[in-house]
Amino acid sequence: MMKTFEKNIRRVTPYVPGEQPQRPVVKLNTNENPYPPAPGVEKVLHEMDAGQLRLYPDPTAASLVQELAAYYHVKPEQVFVGVGSDDVLAMCFLTFFNSEKPILFPDITYSFYKVWADLYRIPYECPKLQDDFRICKEDYYRENGGVIFPNPNAPTSLYENLDFVEDMVKHNPDVIVIVDEAYVDFAGPSAIGLLEKYENLIVTQTFSKARSMAGMRIGCAIASPLLIQYLNDAKYSFNSYTMNQTSILSGVEAVKDKDYFNAQVQKIVRTREWTAGELRKLGFVFPEPGANFIFAKHPDLDGTELYEALREKDIFVRHWEDERIRQYLRITIGTQEQMETLIAFLKTYSGLKKEENR
Amino acid sequence: MMKTFEKNIRRVTPYVPGEQPQRPVVKLNTNENPYPPAPGVEKVLHEMDAGQLRLYPDPTAASLVQELAAYYHVKPEQVFVGVGSDDVLAMCFLTFFNSEKPILFPDITYSFYKVWADLYRIPYECPKLQDDFRICKEDYYRENGGVIFPNPNAPTSLYENLDFVEDMVKHNPDVIVIVDEAYVDFAGPSAIGLLEKYENLIVTQTFSKARSMAGMRIGCAIASPLLIQYLNDAKYSFNSYTMNQTSILSGVEAVKDKDYFNAQVQKIVRTREWTAGELRKLGFVFPEPGANFIFAKHPDLDGTELYEALREKDIFVRHWEDERIRQYLRITIGTQEQMETLIAFLKTYSGLKKEENR
Repeated sequence: MMKTFEKNIRRVTPYVPGEQPQRPVVKLNTNENPYPPAPGVEKVLHEMDAGQLRLYPDPTAASLVQELAAYYHVKPEQVFVGVGSDDVLAMCFLTFFNSEKPILFPDITYSFYKVWADLYRIPYECPKLQDDFRICKEDYYRENGGVIFPNPNAPTSLYENLDFVEDMVKHNPDVIVIVDEAYVDFAGPSAIGLLEKYENLIVTQTFSKARSMAGMRIGCAIASPLLIQYLNDAKYSFNSYTMNQTSILSGVEAVKDKDYFNAQVQKIVRTREWTAGELRKLGFVFPEPGANFIFAKHPDLDGTELYEALREKDIFVRHWEDERIRQYLRITIGTQEQMETLIAFLKTYSGLKKEENR
Repeated sequence: MMKTFEKNIRRVTPYVPGEQPQRPVVKLNTNENPYPPAPGVEKVLHEMDAGQLRLYPDPTAASLVQELAAYYHVKPEQVFVGVGSDDVLAMCFLTFFNSEKPILFPDITYSFYKVWADLYRIPYECPKLQDDFRICKEDYYRENGGVIFPNPNAPTSLYENLDFVEDMVKHNPDVIVIVDEAYVDFAGPSAIGLLEKYENLIVTQTFSKARSMAGMRIGCAIASPLLIQYLNDAKYSFNSYTMNQTSILSGVEAVKDKDYFNAQVQKIVRTREWTAGELRKLGFVFPEPGANFIFAKHPDLDGTELYEALREKDIFVRHWEDERIRQYLRITIGTQEQMETLIAFLKTYSGLKKEENR
């Protein structure tokens, strides 16, 4: 029986993150980077004076903010950092999506948007992706409380060019438009270049994917000084010190090392192109991949069954039971070797299935 | 002129944290610990395999949860961890203070309670502390949406014994009662022992004070498995991965080293007793200090003036302009040497003021 004190407790349907198995598997289920972060990251941790931990961290994370500003060619007043882009995005929802009108985001997208909207009781509507999984931008040209979409989108991996993004921003001058660029480094140019023209645009990025630092929890938002000021005011009223000292120190090192970063990204893109080619040969179909994952289905194979078969071989990919995408698997690009293991299994599996169906 | 898109932005009065000067000062303004954390903390950071940072951290922070459960003699299902006790408390406000009735907390207390209540639009009332700055518990024996108070209270430093705490919990069986024990290690027994009897009690603690890890951002809540489940559901819906790998690893080391912890706490308590004695000799008055700070005023000295005079000598303490406490300074207990510097200055200053007033 429910206790009286339970009456006023907020009940939420918890988000279920991708599984983090403790034994070694071919882990292609959470879009992690298969390579270590820049060497400077380990160095700065190994040389750290832990005695400094007795002090609160710099609440403004100034050193990391400055490094990011230099990297993106913007002013430090245009940079906000947080505990992963989840923290940054949640803070953006809280700060900017404060209207009675529904915010808009695609029906198939990062599943956390819906969760934050529910948590903060923000009304929302979800225009359907087209049949080819592209966002239909005209669906967003109407009265709304704000717009958010990832570019590339997840889990589709589809990247839209900057003309598309600019159209979205231009047609929504009276609300805040957030472009969630968690995967943009694997795709094409960032919308950060549009910030010069649009004061209502926010671009968010993460250190968890291309920068190989999911374990450190760092994300950022780049926007006009006006919006960053609002964001900081809300953030400081919630929790002044979110970025710990190790995040700040190691984040700086990661941003500094551009050569390492570019080389890693290119390596993953090459492996993605190889994997895409092999999957096509096997008959898989998928939207043009722009992220470090491929969202693929096979016309003759059941998505759920294939997901289970892979799992049995300790190859973890991501799968959702939602009607529109249940035939699809989201496959993270791992090392070349991991992808070869995956392709070898798929060759055998699709061969066996052909036999069965004969 | 305000832009149209600014209309729907949430406006908050940002909390102003204690100043973090970048040059070396006698820093007695943010209740930091003057000693380094346990030696195991530096060791585990220096030996860390940063290659692991490419992976998301364990979202349950299981190793830290287990270590805390063992330390507090509770079950792991009774432990919740977050990015500092600010994160833990904000999540508790969001999860448990969801009633139409006002929550109750003292008029003079940790200033963030008001900020979170405003942020989440939780109604609240603030019963006045008695003239001696003690909480009048009977003020809390009435219909409400929840109760929170720090023990020891801040900035008064006053600790209430467990009979007092139990009375508060017992008289509020239909709501959640949160005891914020950020400073309890410097005072007396924790209310964690009461958890066996009360399923509606939450005790929060921090690694920022007695554990000397303000820079790492770790806090925890200990409660019944029922309440921790609710808290985790809300937390996972907000941000699944908040504790980064370095926090989890170093937190475990800090909790393990009980001898180091006890020795540091005793050292600070000895310095506090010495400082209290010296302040009394100089004519300062203050509530019995139970935390790593003393909340003191002098009948003949103006609080604001003294605060400014200290600042000019690079001795930073905390001061508020609120009517009831503007004559008081909150003085963090630093090293014995730092406190000797403070006392030497106060001796000269109060002597000069006596001269002036003659």
